[in-house]
Amino acid sequence: MEQVAAKAGVAKSTLYRRWPSKVELAVHAVAATFDEIEIDDHGSLAADMRAGIGEAARLLRDPSTGGAYAALLAESARDPGGVGVRVRESLSTRLHALVATSVERAIDRGEIRRDMIDVDLLADVVVGSVMHRALATGEPDEAFVDGLIALLADVAYARLRREQREQRD
Amino acid sequence: MEQVAAKAGVAKSTLYRRWPSKVELAVHAVAATFDEIEIDDHGSLAADMRAGIGEAARLLRDPSTGGAYAALLAESARDPGGVGVRVRESLSTRLHALVATSVERAIDRGEIRRDMIDVDLLADVVVGSVMHRALATGEPDEAFVDGLIALLADVAYARLRREQREQRD
Repeated sequence: MEQVAAKAGVAKSTLYRRWPSKVELAVHAVAATFDEIEIDDHGSLAADMRAGIGEAARLLRDPSTGGAYAALLAESARDPGGVGVRVRESLSTRLHALVATSVERAIDRGEIRRDMIDVDLLADVVVGSVMHRALATGEPDEAFVDGLIALLADVAYARLRREQREQRD
Repeated sequence: MEQVAAKAGVAKSTLYRRWPSKVELAVHAVAATFDEIEIDDHGSLAADMRAGIGEAARLLRDPSTGGAYAALLAESARDPGGVGVRVRESLSTRLHALVATSVERAIDRGEIRRDMIDVDLLADVVVGSVMHRALATGEPDEAFVDGLIALLADVAYARLRREQREQRD
C-alpha cells in the first residue's frame, strides 16, 4: 500500500479509507481495467473475437494488470470463501459480460445459435490461455493470438457443419 | 517459510539451505507435482486428453497447488527476468512434455498429423482454462471438463475434415 500511496501522491490513510485492504485495491484496479474495454462491433464473430483476444493479450502482458490478476487468483486459492467470492462477484461477472456482448451480436447476425456456445467456458478459455501464455510460458504475440483464433474458428466451423448435416438428414 | 518448516517438522535453516527463497520452494513444489503426473496410454487422443484435463483440474483445484502456481505467475509478472525465467525453465518445459506425450502417441496411431497441432498452444489452452475456472470463475467440475473436451474434439474434427477435403480435391 505504501508504494501505491507514494505513486499516487496521496497519504496511506486516504487509500485505506477507500480500500480497506490490498486485495480490495487489487480487485478494484483489475475491475476498472475490465470496465475500460470497449467491445466494438467488427462485423463478424471472428473479427470481434480477434479484437477481444488482442485486448486481453495487451492487458495481461502489462505486468501490473497481469500480476495483480494472478495475485488475486493466488489469494482466492488461499481464501476461497472471502477473496474468492469477491473475485467471482466482481471480475467473473464482468468477464462473462464482455464475452457475452460479442456472442449476442453473433446470434443476432445469425452467425451462430445460442446452444452452440458456452459463454463462461469461452471466457475461461480466452482469458486463461492468454494469461498462462503471458505469465507462465512466453509472450502472447501475434502468432499465439492467430493460433488461438484459428482454434476457436475451427470449433465454430465444426458446430455449424454438424448443424447443417442434422438439418439435411 | 516458517509455516512450511513447522508443517514439515524441520528447522527453517534446513529449508533455506535447500531452497534459498520462497519462490525457489514454490517452483520446486509445483515442479514436483507435475513430475507425479503419469500420462498413461488410454487408446485415443480424446481419452488421453480427458485424463490429462481431469488431472489438471484435480491438481489446480487443490488450493495449495493452484495457489502456489498462481503466486508464481504473479511473481513472474513482477520479476520477468528472474522468477519469470525460473518458471519458464522449470515449469513450462514440463507442461510441454506432458502434452507432447499424448500428441506424439496420437501421431504414431495415425489419429492426427504433426502440423495440425501446436503443442505449446494446446498446453496454454488446457492449463490456462482449467486454472482460470478453478481460481477465478468457479469449479472445474465434470460439466466444465466435458465442455473443454468437446471444444478440443471439434478442433480435431475440423482439421481432419479439412485435410480429407484437400486430399480429395
